[in-house]
Amino acid sequence: MSYKHLNDIIRLALVEDIGVGDLTTALTVDHATSAQAEIVAKEDLVVAGLQAAQQTFELVDPAVIFKPLAVNSDRAASGDTLARLSGSAASILTAERVALNFLMNLSGVATLTARFVSAVKPHQVRIVDTRKTTPGMRALEKEAVRAGGGDNHRFGLFDGILIKDNHIVAAGSITSAVTRAKKGAPHTLKVEVEVGDLPGLEEAIAAGADIVLLDNMNPDLLTRAVKVTQGRVVLEASGGINLTNVAQVAATGVDIISIGALTHSAPAVDISLDFTMGQKC
Amino acid sequence: MSYKHLNDIIRLALVEDIGVGDLTTALTVDHATSAQAEIVAKEDLVVAGLQAAQQTFELVDPAVIFKPLAVNSDRAASGDTLARLSGSAASILTAERVALNFLMNLSGVATLTARFVSAVKPHQVRIVDTRKTTPGMRALEKEAVRAGGGDNHRFGLFDGILIKDNHIVAAGSITSAVTRAKKGAPHTLKVEVEVGDLPGLEEAIAAGADIVLLDNMNPDLLTRAVKVTQGRVVLEASGGINLTNVAQVAATGVDIISIGALTHSAPAVDISLDFTMGQKC
Amino acid sequence: MSYKHLNDIIRLALVEDIGVGDLTTALTVDHATSAQAEIVAKEDLVVAGLQAAQQTFELVDPAVIFKPLAVNSDRAASGDTLARLSGSAASILTAERVALNFLMNLSGVATLTARFVSAVKPHQVRIVDTRKTTPGMRALEKEAVRAGGGDNHRFGLFDGILIKDNHIVAAGSITSAVTRAKKGAPHTLKVEVEVGDLPGLEEAIAAGADIVLLDNMNPDLLTRAVKVTQGRVVLEASGGINLTNVAQVAATGVDIISIGALTHSAPAVDISLDFTMGQKC
Amino acid sequence: MSYKHLNDIIRLALVEDIGVGDLTTALTVDHATSAQAEIVAKEDLVVAGLQAAQQTFELVDPAVIFKPLAVNSDRAASGDTLARLSGSAASILTAERVALNFLMNLSGVATLTARFVSAVKPHQVRIVDTRKTTPGMRALEKEAVRAGGGDNHRFGLFDGILIKDNHIVAAGSITSAVTRAKKGAPHTLKVEVEVGDLPGLEEAIAAGADIVLLDNMNPDLLTRAVKVTQGRVVLEASGGINLTNVAQVAATGVDIISIGALTHSAPAVDISLDFTMGQKC
Amino acid sequence: MSYKHLNDIIRLALVEDIGVGDLTTALTVDHATSAQAEIVAKEDLVVAGLQAAQQTFELVDPAVIFKPLAVNSDRAASGDTLARLSGSAASILTAERVALNFLMNLSGVATLTARFVSAVKPHQVRIVDTRKTTPGMRALEKEAVRAGGGDNHRFGLFDGILIKDNHIVAAGSITSAVTRAKKGAPHTLKVEVEVGDLPGLEEAIAAGADIVLLDNMNPDLLTRAVKVTQGRVVLEASGGINLTNVAQVAATGVDIISIGALTHSAPAVDISLDFTMGQKC
Amino acid sequence: MSYKHLNDIIRLALVEDIGVGDLTTALTVDHATSAQAEIVAKEDLVVAGLQAAQQTFELVDPAVIFKPLAVNSDRAASGDTLARLSGSAASILTAERVALNFLMNLSGVATLTARFVSAVKPHQVRIVDTRKTTPGMRALEKEAVRAGGGDNHRFGLFDGILIKDNHIVAAGSITSAVTRAKKGAPHTLKVEVEVGDLPGLEEAIAAGADIVLLDNMNPDLLTRAVKVTQGRVVLEASGGINLTNVAQVAATGVDIISIGALTHSAPAVDISLDFTMGQKC
Repeated sequence: MSYKHLNDIIRLALVEDIGVGDLTTALTVDHATSAQAEIVAKEDLVVAGLQAAQQTFELVDPAVIFKPLAVNSDRAASGDTLARLSGSAASILTAERVALNFLMNLSGVATLTARFVSAVKPHQVRIVDTRKTTPGMRALEKEAVRAGGGDNHRFGLFDGILIKDNHIVAAGSITSAVTRAKKGAPHTLKVEVEVGDLPGLEEAIAAGADIVLLDNMNPDLLTRAVKVTQGRVVLEASGGINLTNVAQVAATGVDIISIGALTHSAPAVDISLDFTMGQKC
Repeated sequence: MSYKHLNDIIRLALVEDIGVGDLTTALTVDHATSAQAEIVAKEDLVVAGLQAAQQTFELVDPAVIFKPLAVNSDRAASGDTLARLSGSAASILTAERVALNFLMNLSGVATLTARFVSAVKPHQVRIVDTRKTTPGMRALEKEAVRAGGGDNHRFGLFDGILIKDNHIVAAGSITSAVTRAKKGAPHTLKVEVEVGDLPGLEEAIAAGADIVLLDNMNPDLLTRAVKVTQGRVVLEASGGINLTNVAQVAATGVDIISIGALTHSAPAVDISLDFTMGQKC
Repeated sequence: MSYKHLNDIIRLALVEDIGVGDLTTALTVDHATSAQAEIVAKEDLVVAGLQAAQQTFELVDPAVIFKPLAVNSDRAASGDTLARLSGSAASILTAERVALNFLMNLSGVATLTARFVSAVKPHQVRIVDTRKTTPGMRALEKEAVRAGGGDNHRFGLFDGILIKDNHIVAAGSITSAVTRAKKGAPHTLKVEVEVGDLPGLEEAIAAGADIVLLDNMNPDLLTRAVKVTQGRVVLEASGGINLTNVAQVAATGVDIISIGALTHSAPAVDISLDFTMGQKC
Repeated sequence: MSYKHLNDIIRLALVEDIGVGDLTTALTVDHATSAQAEIVAKEDLVVAGLQAAQQTFELVDPAVIFKPLAVNSDRAASGDTLARLSGSAASILTAERVALNFLMNLSGVATLTARFVSAVKPHQVRIVDTRKTTPGMRALEKEAVRAGGGDNHRFGLFDGILIKDNHIVAAGSITSAVTRAKKGAPHTLKVEVEVGDLPGLEEAIAAGADIVLLDNMNPDLLTRAVKVTQGRVVLEASGGINLTNVAQVAATGVDIISIGALTHSAPAVDISLDFTMGQKC
Repeated sequence: MSYKHLNDIIRLALVEDIGVGDLTTALTVDHATSAQAEIVAKEDLVVAGLQAAQQTFELVDPAVIFKPLAVNSDRAASGDTLARLSGSAASILTAERVALNFLMNLSGVATLTARFVSAVKPHQVRIVDTRKTTPGMRALEKEAVRAGGGDNHRFGLFDGILIKDNHIVAAGSITSAVTRAKKGAPHTLKVEVEVGDLPGLEEAIAAGADIVLLDNMNPDLLTRAVKVTQGRVVLEASGGINLTNVAQVAATGVDIISIGALTHSAPAVDISLDFTMGQKC
Repeated sequence: MSYKHLNDIIRLALVEDIGVGDLTTALTVDHATSAQAEIVAKEDLVVAGLQAAQQTFELVDPAVIFKPLAVNSDRAASGDTLARLSGSAASILTAERVALNFLMNLSGVATLTARFVSAVKPHQVRIVDTRKTTPGMRALEKEAVRAGGGDNHRFGLFDGILIKDNHIVAAGSITSAVTRAKKGAPHTLKVEVEVGDLPGLEEAIAAGADIVLLDNMNPDLLTRAVKVTQGRVVLEASGGINLTNVAQVAATGVDIISIGALTHSAPAVDISLDFTMGQKC
């Protein structure tokens, strides 16, 4: 991830939470009070976001010591301690909520991804994310998908070519869009195109596409698509795929399954921070 | 909302998606092509985030015309058109994903909130959010909670006083923490404190708290808390409340029910953008 | 104060003073020259802003050692040393003016506040600031008010509710404005309203205001306001209050006196930085 | 002034005042309410800062119409209207305080400057400012000094050379410091040096200084300095100069008088914004 | 190009040139003076950077009218007018230098690129740029390369995979590095690897590389590389290629020639801005 | 140089190169691998930009140790080592290109400047730069000019007064422009004006200019200008000066020669970074 991007979203989150100051802590906690605390999983989960949590505390107070007891992609059971902290009680209290928000959201993404990955296990297929991410959180959510055992699709509009339905409308046809992309693309990038039926698939292959996204096809149609393709291009299934039907989709033989819900609908998992000791120092 | 905050998160989202440019659109769509498009609900939902979507298109290309056909808090049925766009096909394609990400996430928050509000309807109780929001999205998510019929708790650490368990550990006791807060707080703010049992509630009231948060109490205990309080302070229930038990909690007579899931676990709702016409202009 | 806000104004001040570089120092002082220096009060004053001064030197050169000999709210006599510095002579010279500008302005605010607080000493009344602060300096000026023994009013528009004359014009009446505010305000905030006469005060109380600001009333009228209120709301006097009449105002029995001059018209106090030794290192 | 600097300080001031939103206005004023308002001088003053006030309203709401009725350096009497506004009542209320803070502070600087300029009128002398400005406000305060009839000294450390006492300590002697500066300075800049006595003045002239700052000299000493200099360099008097003694200083024949109080101790002047009409539109 | 990146570098350039203001223009040109001006080529060149020049004027003063008379990739002869401007004389003077700096540098890149492209004309080969660009100018320089008829390599480290000598040292071998990259890369990206000799080329192809960069090979070696490759991978020649030898390199049959000098050593071309009329308006 | 400006351009360069991450390094190099590397001159050059290179590595990874073996203005022969690095192999690879881009461009400027300085050696004349710099790089390029033995002209529009042809058109005449500038300029600045012929020179001197820029005059005309001036003002030659004719220009007796090519057309010099050892740590 960029050396800079992570800081941007953490700072934004701190500004929106702390604003001009933490009134409650300023009024109730002496500056000289130190504390020890634990971050604890309150349900079974796959860990992601610990680094963001650590940087949150560091940005608020570089003197807080954050000791991670797990790494991204670890399985944690309810009750497991994910990290230990010590330092100024006031600083820990001020940073707590933002740090936990990162951890709960990102471990939620990793945990959901792990379920999808587990569901397709016998098959040779990659579970990948989409660009349907939470605004500002893309880099972290994509890292959380990897923590859950998934793979990443392109990061954004700038590092991959994926011709979608509206591009085809604007360009006139699959053939026209793919041909233009093949001709102008940097030599380091493949060209992917979305199709909705088998004729579209054939047209895409004929036009020179490297990858074809099969949009919203049911398992039967996907199976036929795999058959007719015969390995000429990489095939990606997308649209309407959930934990109930993902194994069926994987069984069709597609190479890649992309799932928006990994990032846009993963429920947060429950994680808390508890003071284990507070005292004047 | 601040005149500035909304722009920050939209810009961050555009930077992470567009980066150094939209390769696919640049390669497949002529600059001179114009388009008309619709944003359409693909399931029943409560609308939120239309303004963020509109600003997303405006930031990418001020010449795109975005005409909203709904306002925040409107109910939309699957198939309803939420907005119409016209302008450069390339600009619409480049902004599409970020705009939809805002709409899908925020309408998800509004839709979930509306379910909670509906579930407690016969009771005199406010459904409010918490600080368990998505990093960077707090202002928008809190607006979405209002769109769903909920109310907002304090925005962050700077505009309200809420003494939580760890503050009490650090301050020594409920009495000590509340007394300090009452003495030092600006005269415009009330003092709220979290307690976990009835003795804590009595201690909080005696110390002069204006509001008491009853943490993780079951309906029986909440009912007793309401009874012993006799209106001396405002009572807020929090912790472990979901669509199954929220009506029971409301029936206990508490004034306020705060629910983290409104913002941290609302699934996105499905919304798409479809070109209705594309042509050279 | 926010973990971030202080840095913003210091950086802005350094950019405007240093710009593309300190020409004089670059031309006349060797990089290898080290120096020791003192920051000295040139008149009697109440200290504020030492932390901002320290951060100014740290931003210019983290290797400069800044040792404060006083803390905010300390009384200093003319000639007292407030801090000692050692490090690169060039760095100290480059940061000197900005650091002193913070110290002189903020100690000026603290010193003036202390005079007001002293003038009302026998009375049970809070001296508080207003939003009439210097652009960019609000957080620091409010901290300086506390250093002088005063209290803070709300920080800004976002953390307190104060209905002023123009709001009442727009809302139609005191009753309408207060009623709307009470209904919609987050449960953690009180509602304050400004009135100019006793009927306004009665209307405000009847409408449910928690605090009433008595605008530009003379001591006689304030006394009558206190009498008719009988403790039903908190009373704040504001407008036209200076060192000559503040004791009289305090004697009326109001709870709070707010004074714009604390921040908008406090004269700077004289403080200088003197090299005590300069030598090659 | 830089095309950009003004925006920085206005944005910072808006962020610190508005933060996440103007609660009072949101609760009490309908979005559809429009208003007309006047900005009125409440005491005699010299105008400065109208452009900053205008940009403040524009940043909050570009649809607000701000019509200035005066320009910088105009004299206004108590009761004079400085500007008229019309537009959204809510927008005007949200921007009001920040806009007035700029106007009151900057017109205060212009008004005080005008008094100094008037006090030295018969003499051929420039009243100039110093770098003792309010952090973040330098460009605006220097413009206000010009509005009051004064002139500007160098803007900061980057656009002029002024060797001060501590530079001389670090460089070893006046001669050493001036010689180094003359040799290395860009050919477009003059070299100024601060001295405290007549031998220092002679040393500075001998070393080739273009301008000599006479620090904290009384009128007698200044008179002798002017006499011995015989026009060989430009002479600037500085230190301990106020409205009582400035005419005496001017009478000594120095070319320039610099006064820190113009910017660090000018009291704000009283200016208010009054709604003249509020109505639904 | 990103909707935002271009603005960043223009703003930085304006800040470094204008700083706190254009003294000369403020002193010598009345605000009310309007002017008409032309931007004129002073030597034969290929145009690039006109959009950056236009945005420079717009950022300084949106009221200046900038009418381009050419587009990127146009050939201009010495004396040709590239654009006409009208508006405030002061604004045009303040923006002139920064706008010309963009034009002169970027048209320099386009002009040099066009020479290389012309030199290889009979051959089927792409002339592409490298990451050896001027800090801050990459997006604009890459656009200028296209204006000169060249193609772009990957933009940066984030949108393409190119394993270089030092990566191979760190990974242990070509085989190890390529294998790891093929396994972990997003499915939308090809894998390129740099080799210095024919055995390296064979190892790269065997390991599954999609593209091989032939580093610093002379034409003979390149010819042999093309022969042994037989179209199995795309071949890119790089290192030590100049206008004298580029045709020879092209004749070897490589697919791509990358040249750092396009962006790091293109001399600026001479372009000036001349007032054609200045008058009071 | 400003404490802040250098960081701005380095960060911009890192963002444009690294974006959301260094894919190749992430895929091929273990996080635990450490490396030692050398930065080596590949041709004879004058060193500049080492500090920018060092800060680039520090921004990417503060744990990388960068040991400079040269300082600005040192002559280095082809093969000389300029710096040694040790630390994370991944961090060094990620920062390498940006660091080298600074070094190659800036040492290019220093090297070209040194050639001009050497060419005029017997003469008492300063070789100075202009404002024809690369956008974003001005502070660094001006430092590189000094490293090459040249001097700096004013930095930008804000720290010096130079009346150019278009100003004279707008002001009406040389006399008008110079008179206005002399009257209004801060007392710390000299006034320079550009003229194209000897009558212009006389008019400028008569109007009180301190410095006259002789634009595009050939050596004969320059010689006559020097003669008629007789030391009354400083004379600067500019326009069309290159390594072939600069000695002739210097021989005319002008005080200063300004050359745009120093910064706008200096070819980059060749510098590389080589791993000397890579191993697991």
